[in-house]
Parts: sequence; structure tokens; C-alpha cells
Amino acid sequence: MFRHQHNLQFSNPLNVVFAFQMGSLEFEHELNDISSFDNQSLNPLDPEEFRRQGHMMIDFLADYYHNIENFPVLSQVEPNYLRKCLPESAPHNPEPIEKILQDVQNHIMPGITHWQSPNFFAYFSATCSTAGFLGEMLSSGLNVVGFSWISSPAATELESIVMDWLGEMLNLPKSFLFSGNGGGVIQGTTCEAILCTLIAARDEMLKKIGRDKIGQLVVYASDQTHSAHQKAAQIAGIHPENFRVIRTTKETLFGLSPEMMKLTVKFDVQAGLIPLFLCATVGTTSTTAVDPIRPLCDVAKEYGIWVHVDAAYAGSACVCPEFRHFIDGVEGVNSFSLNAHKWFFTPLDCCCLWVKDSGALTRSLSTNPEFLRNKASDSRQVVDYKDWQITLSRRFRALKLWLVLRSHGVANLRSLLRTHVEMAKLFEQLVYGDSRFEIPVPRNFAMVCFRVSPEAVAEKVLKKKVATDEEESVNQLNEKLLESINASGRIYMTHAVVDGVFVIRFAVGATLTEERHVRMAWQVVQEHLDKI
Amino acid sequence: MFRHQHNLQFSNPLNVVFAFQMGSLEFEHELNDISSFDNQSLNPLDPEEFRRQGHMMIDFLADYYHNIENFPVLSQVEPNYLRKCLPESAPHNPEPIEKILQDVQNHIMPGITHWQSPNFFAYFSATCSTAGFLGEMLSSGLNVVGFSWISSPAATELESIVMDWLGEMLNLPKSFLFSGNGGGVIQGTTCEAILCTLIAARDEMLKKIGRDKIGQLVVYASDQTHSAHQKAAQIAGIHPENFRVIRTTKETLFGLSPEMMKLTVKFDVQAGLIPLFLCATVGTTSTTAVDPIRPLCDVAKEYGIWVHVDAAYAGSACVCPEFRHFIDGVEGVNSFSLNAHKWFFTPLDCCCLWVKDSGALTRSLSTNPEFLRNKASDSRQVVDYKDWQITLSRRFRALKLWLVLRSHGVANLRSLLRTHVEMAKLFEQLVYGDSRFEIPVPRNFAMVCFRVSPEAVAEKVLKKKVATDEEESVNQLNEKLLESINASGRIYMTHAVVDGVFVIRFAVGATLTEERHVRMAWQVVQEHLDKI
Repeated sequence: MFRHQHNLQFSNPLNVVFAFQMGSLEFEHELNDISSFDNQSLNPLDPEEFRRQGHMMIDFLADYYHNIENFPVLSQVEPNYLRKCLPESAPHNPEPIEKILQDVQNHIMPGITHWQSPNFFAYFSATCSTAGFLGEMLSSGLNVVGFSWISSPAATELESIVMDWLGEMLNLPKSFLFSGNGGGVIQGTTCEAILCTLIAARDEMLKKIGRDKIGQLVVYASDQTHSAHQKAAQIAGIHPENFRVIRTTKETLFGLSPEMMKLTVKFDVQAGLIPLFLCATVGTTSTTAVDPIRPLCDVAKEYGIWVHVDAAYAGSACVCPEFRHFIDGVEGVNSFSLNAHKWFFTPLDCCCLWVKDSGALTRSLSTNPEFLRNKASDSRQVVDYKDWQITLSRRFRALKLWLVLRSHGVANLRSLLRTHVEMAKLFEQLVYGDSRFEIPVPRNFAMVCFRVSPEAVAEKVLKKKVATDEEESVNQLNEKLLESINASGRIYMTHAVVDGVFVIRFAVGATLTEERHVRMAWQVVQEHLDKI
Repeated sequence: MFRHQHNLQFSNPLNVVFAFQMGSLEFEHELNDISSFDNQSLNPLDPEEFRRQGHMMIDFLADYYHNIENFPVLSQVEPNYLRKCLPESAPHNPEPIEKILQDVQNHIMPGITHWQSPNFFAYFSATCSTAGFLGEMLSSGLNVVGFSWISSPAATELESIVMDWLGEMLNLPKSFLFSGNGGGVIQGTTCEAILCTLIAARDEMLKKIGRDKIGQLVVYASDQTHSAHQKAAQIAGIHPENFRVIRTTKETLFGLSPEMMKLTVKFDVQAGLIPLFLCATVGTTSTTAVDPIRPLCDVAKEYGIWVHVDAAYAGSACVCPEFRHFIDGVEGVNSFSLNAHKWFFTPLDCCCLWVKDSGALTRSLSTNPEFLRNKASDSRQVVDYKDWQITLSRRFRALKLWLVLRSHGVANLRSLLRTHVEMAKLFEQLVYGDSRFEIPVPRNFAMVCFRVSPEAVAEKVLKKKVATDEEESVNQLNEKLLESINASGRIYMTHAVVDGVFVIRFAVGATLTEERHVRMAWQVVQEHLDKI
């Protein structure tokens, strides 16, 4: 039935024709059959049709992974390219899956930026795996809606169990585990995790000081904190003037200084404002900087501030003993989150949030409409995760995390993470080996920030033109270099600006990346610098 | 490779042993191989291993659908059943997929409430389909993170296109489509859709009247409105005292009365408060009641109130011309949402939200950190959906909606929805045919609310015992009936209480449901009434 070879050709916007081996789809045969296609009489979930089409999609994806390096990593399409390819309205009659897959190939693929490509080094990777994918499939196939325990007990209970498992792997204190009166919940993203904990903190405070004082609440973070914190504060109704962004500097490696934090808080208190919430980060997006948790908690404790630690990216690494020290002091925080969909082999979305006091969450987020009332919930013997998050409906996300943990095992997961770090170290060494480049901020995990050095620019560029601002010229050259590299489609990296310095970020984490890809990436960087 | 027959036995908590045909998994062979299992050397996304395990999971799910009627619909486990089945910690070493699938079978399945069972009539169905499932698979397989256009242009553009397609199918005014200055976005759930629009409305208002007046903002809805509205108001910092719940009655079929709305708003204005937001519902959760959109908009317009229409369940039906009148007046609202994951053959989660003024959303929800800056966004020629929603990271959800629309076609989708309505009508007729039952609120869509009538209870029950409160006795009997039915595992229904009346909800919508299941369900109801 499968395994027939068939070539499909498609042109990408670079006008390069890639031969994409479809491997397993009998396209021609099937397309000849379209005229006789009729699924009107079929149930849309007919098991045998599900099986036939499901196998087809698996082959499509397996072939995609085989051929993924043939695609430009960063999509090269122009805005609104797709409107020109697709009809203006939904079709009146059914279309066969074979035709749809051909359109995916011809029209969707050119507009894909290939996050699963081994040459993807942008943002932070969405590190996937077969196990995580299978868990997601199983979740979609069962398609249960796990808002309350009763609506699918396994969905709730497996989530509690895997959150305890992962918490234990991270050596989180017992107080964050269900076995110790805390607990974990899988949210969609860090934005939701921060929003939920901020709301919980806000409502606890307002209960004490009165609802009318919402305008006096102040939230804190560094200038390196993810924008999710700002958005959460906006949504929660924190007065924009009370959103403190504390400046970091190179001296503290862009970590938040507890002294600066304390000064800022003191000033607010003197002004009659009420300190509420600190979002500290372990592994910032720009440079993977780490805020020092323990001394920040000391400040927070003094003023009754809720501390959330956003370890979206770097939290995963902390399952390795050698990285665990980055979250030292976590016993002092109120909540802690990491994204398993970033660097823990789990497809989007899977943000793991632990809290010490789940009551604070549920007091803010509970609603108990009659139509959801049931004996299990009334008995208070069960967790109803709807009260731990923003949304009511929720997917059975625990399955994918469970499959990842079991399919790989703790030892193997650690060694996979270490491989990524080793590849980043390799890249670091390659950068160090070329005197034209520098690494302005040290590497902590599997991401290297680098740039063409001011010295090199002065030598090569500045002698040719008069610059009014040297740093600006250095930034411009690095920006140009990055653009040139990304436009090639061979690798994809993104940038950050810290303390006025434009840095190129090289983030290792795509599951298919091997040492040869890292070496190739470095070659691409060097070639493009030679060229521009 | 596939198609080998193999029997797996598992016992469920009812102590009934189901023979579950595994169909396609060579379990024994594979399990004998565990000792030699070693994936340490494999890349976790190795394409051939992906193919092998993917096919296995497809077969697992196809077999599940084949055998789904063998499971009790409502899970019969006791709280904390799963902790007893699973180890306390994550495994140190990798485990083979065959062993994991066996654990799914033995330990997870008993804790599943089978939303895809043809005998599932609870809540609102999560109406799935092969097409929707394949779209989700493709989305997980590509695993792109579509926060900005540049991060995967196809993810953004396909979403804009399918939202226009679906908007057109609903005959939404042009002002809600991208082709007419509005636009649509796929959110996770209605909770997010309400929260985002409420925040947008709040911030527009506060810009005019000043941030300090947040405590004076009032939001409105009926007592039938989904709890999502309450939660959104809590999160948005609306003062709990300013959350208006307007009572509905049987006279208006539990629809929100525009006169009551107007009176309530007037009273608030006289009290110096500021009316902000109305959440109207088309198809309430308890009884599928419909708030009259046009006259409510007239009231809202007078006071500058943002109107959101939550058509989570019933919106889908409005693609059929004969149901479209339920959203007449939609041209007057600010935003409109429906859940494709409820009654549109799409797996969780897929809430479609249209707005007239996307600027109101983006002004509230935009953040523009440097690390996401790119030329396409700077050019303002593209949509960056991160600014239309709460979260930054987002899955390529449009794929599943696109596959559903194309695989079925408009005509077929309409006829599938009509089949569900016809089955509900059949059930309605069956209820009418038994004088012991009544239908306290009329059916609008594919859900029937019914109960044992007070007359029947008086005849059968009250003559045996002295009741202090007749309505209470009727409610108790109906509650007991529902419990008895659900405990049997043969079908699953849930309840609502409207105007003090306990009703049993029979919601048709599971994709596998056929006429025979509806007839069987009615038989189960009758049998259980005979029994109690």
C-alpha cells in the first residue's frame, strides 16, 4: 500500500526547483480518481478512512523531515503571497486529501519558516521529538476536554503526575509538588503562566488593601524580561505608570541587580505605592542572562512581593545537575515556569507552571457554573484544572510530556540537552578562532551571542567611510551581515540589542541539528562576512 | 508490516473485561525486544523511527474508533486511581513505544471520558473529524511558532484566508473580514476571545476617561451567559461589584431582554458608573437560548457599549441559511466568536474571533520587543497575530480549519450539521411520545432539554411520600435519573438548572453518532426511569 516512490516537483520563491521525494503517496493514481471522489456518504471520522489518510500524513511528514534541508530555512515569500495561490472562498464540494497535500506542498511549504530544520538557529528552538508528536496525536485523537476532573479523569491525573515527575527532576522543593501541598499545571505559554500568577498575586493583595487600590499596585522586572510580562501587566489592569523596568548592565551580565531592585521598591513605597509582583528570569531571550533568584527573593520577602521565575527556555537545562545552580534559591519564590515546548522535545504548546499556593490561583480563577457541577468536584477530592488557568476548555497536554519523559528517560534527556550545549560550545570556539568576531556576553546554555567586533569593523569598514558614530556603524554592519545570511535561506538566526549593542544570536536546539550543521553554519557566517 | 491481528485484554474499573482489538500492533514481538531496546544513539526525530511509530499510533487510534462503543462513556474511576498505576518518578532509561501504548490501554483508557463516543451527549460535543485531526498532525509536525508573520508567513496568511472564508460562509458583514478592514483570528477558546475583546474595550474607554476610573467600568451579561465572561471580567480587573448579571425568564426563553438591559444600564449611569461591555450569547450552554442581537445593539449603541457575541456552540449552525437568522443584527456588534472545536469538526482548540476594529485589539495587546523586530513587521504590510491575542507563541491552527473546509466542502458541512439537528429532532419526538417526560424549553439547534414532568412525579413519587416542596422533589428525581444513567456507562449526558428547574441536556454532535445511537439513548433513559 505504501512505499511507492514518486517525485513531486515544486518551485520555491527563490526560483530554485527542489525535487521533493513524496516517498509514499500514490499521487497520480489518486488524482485521476478525483472525478469519482465522493465522501458525502462517509462519516467524517470513519475509522478506515482515518487509518488510510492518517498513514498518508505520517508518510508526508516523515518525508518532510528527510528532505527538510532542501528548503530555505527562513521563508522567502513576499507579504500576501498566499492570497494569490488560494481561491477566494471555501470550496462548495469536498476535495480529496491527495489534492490538499499537493497544495500544502506547492503553496504552504514556500511560506513555512522551517523551525524543525537542523539549520534553524533563530529565537529559541521549538525542540520537537517523535515522542512529543505522538503524544500530541494521541491527545487530538482522544480529543477529550479536560476542564474538570470528571470530564476525563486521566487528563487531570496524568497532568498532576507528570508535573510532579518533572518537578522532581528539577529538584524543586516539595512545596511545589502535589505531594507537598503545592502543585503543577500545564498552561499553553509563559504569557498565560505570568498572567495567572499575576492575577493571583493582585487579588490576594486587593483582598487585604481594598479593590479601589488597584491603581497603586506596582510590578517589577528587568529591562531584559520577556515582553510577556508587560502584556500580562496590561491585561491585569496594572497602571502603565506602575510597570517598573529596571535597567541591567554588562557588569551584572544583564542579570537584575538585587540592590537596584531594592532601591526601586523603596522609592515606590515612599511614594505611597504598593509593590506587588516581580518577574525574574532564568535565561533571558536576548542573551540567556540569569537573574539571581535568592537575593531577589530576600528583597521581595521584606516587602511581601510575589516572585515568579520565568525559566521558559533555560529551565529545561536545570534537569542536569551541572545547570541546577541557576535556579538556586527557587525555594523562596511563589511560582516557577518553563516551556517544555521550547527545549524539552515537546511540540507547542506546553508551559509547565508550579505554584506553592494553588489556592491563590483558584481563588482568582474559579468559576463554578451549575452546568459543570458534579459530585467529584463537590467532594473537593479532585483537582479541576479549569480553576488554575485562564481558559475553561483544555487539551490533554500531559500525554505529550509523559511520552517524552518515558520514551527518552531522564538520563537520555539530560544527554540530549548536553549535546545541544556542546554544539553551542563548539560554535563558541569557532567564533573565538576568528579574530574578526567577538562574543560580547558569555554563553550560559546552548545559545551564543556574537558579532563582528568594533576593531574588525574599524579596520575594514571605517577606513572607507566617515562614521559619525562608531558603535552605530558596528551595529549596522552586523545587521547587514545577519540579513545577508538569512536571505540566503541556508541558516536562520535572529538578533538582540543589549546595552546598545546589536548581537547575532546563535541558538542551538533543533532536534535534527548535528555537529556538521553547526560547522556549516559557521562557514556560512564567514562567507557572508567576506562577501559584504 | 501492519494489519497483523492481535488481541489485547484490559479490565476496566467496572470489572468488565473488554477485548480490545489492537489490530495492527505486533505487541508480543516488540515486547520481547525490550531488553535490547536502545534509542540512545537515535536522533529523537529520526524520520524512519518517526514513520514507524507514527503508523503505529494511527493504527492505535483507528482501532480505538472501531472499538469505542465498548468503553463506558463516562469514566468510572475513583479519584487518584492513576497514582496507584504509575511509578512515582520518571524512568531513568528509555521505554519503547509498545510498552507505553500498552500502558495507555491499561491505565489511561479507564480514566478517559470518551468525548468521541457516539453515545456522548454531555456538555457540547467536541465534534471531531479525520480532516481536523490531520490538520492538527500537520501543525504539530511542522511545529512552527507563528507569532509574527516572518516566523512563518503561511501560518499567518492561511489564518487570515480561512477566517475570511468562514466569515463569508456565515454571511458576516464585510466589516468583519480582512477584505473589508476588519479581520479574524484563531484563539484557543472563547475565554480568550472574551478576555481580549474586553481588554480592548476597557483600554479604549480608559484612554478617554482616564486610567484611574477603572473601578467605575461596568460589564453586562445575562444569568445564562457562560462563566467565561465572569472570569474574563475578573482577570481584566473589573470591580466585582460592577459585574451585572441580568436575570432572564421563561417568558423570553431565557434570552436577555433589551428592556431589562436598558433599565440596568440607565441605573448604572445614574449612579455615576460607566457602561463598558456586553457579552451577548447565541446558543447558551444551559439551554441554547439566544439573546436578541439587534435590539441589544440598539441599547448598547446609545451608551457606547462594546458588544461581543459569544456564539461558541451555535455559531457553526449559522453557516446553514435556515439558522442564519439567529445572528441577525451581527452588523451592529463589535466582535463575534464561535468555537470550531465545538461543532465544526475541528479538534481542540480552535476559537474563531472576528473584530471590526483590529486596531482596538492591537493597541491593547501589542508589545514590540527588539528581539522580534523585523522588516516585514516594520513595513506594516503584514498581520502579526501575537498582537491579537494573549499569548506570544501560537500554533499553526489554521491548518486544521483549512483541512476541514476543504475535505468536506461547504455543502457537505451544512448537511452534516443538519444531520445533528435532525437527530436532536428525532430525540425530541421520542420525548414527546412518552407522557412521563416534558421539554421545558424549546429546542433551537441540536440539543434537547428534557425532564420527567412534575405531573409524572406527582403520580409516581409524591403519592408515596410527603414532599414539602414539589419542585424540589421533581428536581431530585431528575437528578437521580441522570446519575443512574451516567453510572451505567452506556451514554453520558449532563444537566442544567434554569429558573430553578433541573433539566437533562441531550446534546447531539459526536461525529460517530448515528440515528441508532439516539434511539438507543432514549431506550436507556426510559429503562432507567422504569428502574428508579
